[in-house]
Amino acid sequence: MTIDPIGVVRRIDQDKARIVLKPIHVEGLSGLAVGDRLDVLYWMHELPAEQRRAMRVHPQGDPSRPRKGVFALRSPMRPNPVGVTAVQVLDIRPDGPVVQGLDAHDGSPVIDLKAARPG
Amino acid sequence: MTIDPIGVVRRIDQDKARIVLKPIHVEGLSGLAVGDRLDVLYWMHELPAEQRRAMRVHPQGDPSRPRKGVFALRSPMRPNPVGVTAVQVLDIRPDGPVVQGLDAHDGSPVIDLKAARPG
Repeated sequence: MTIDPIGVVRRIDQDKARIVLKPIHVEGLSGLAVGDRLDVLYWMHELPAEQRRAMRVHPQGDPSRPRKGVFALRSPMRPNPVGVTAVQVLDIRPDGPVVQGLDAHDGSPVIDLKAARPG
Repeated sequence: MTIDPIGVVRRIDQDKARIVLKPIHVEGLSGLAVGDRLDVLYWMHELPAEQRRAMRVHPQGDPSRPRKGVFALRSPMRPNPVGVTAVQVLDIRPDGPVVQGLDAHDGSPVIDLKAARPG
């Protein structure tokens, strides 16, 4: 199973980021509006390989908290380093949206954008 | 970017499914409890390749509704066929959880399980 990124995250500041899509995918934004909520799926490309093998980790990296299974957490340490983050659309530029609330690092490959689930 | 599935979806009925993990990943369930909510990430393995190229589709496949960009929808038709579905844990078996609310087909490769976002 191979993922071909649809674009890349470009940080503007700690709060805002651009999602820069490949030209062939820009049409996929049709109907998106400022204020919409999206789930952004991205690849945590900076995660070291050894952190993909840990099956139990300290919640929020806090060694005073007992280790818990990675599937019972949202820790970035997991076998397949795919992040899913809910964001709000602040602006829509010709090459993709500007969003608020994305925790991805600059340069993270973007896998998908999905309309947020209702409710 | 290559995904190595952590397990597979096995349908029980229309409402319930088992997530059968590979033995090396079972430890990642540590701390998970019946009643917990999870986001299940899975690969929509039955999606034909040509449906990964459409950038605008009819919402819910209804031809009477005007086409909209795939990134403004949750349609299964998208460049990277990764589904993200919120489920509830009904039971925890030695090889993985039984969950309610998963829309994945039988045999879908499972990419990740994440604790649901708070709220």
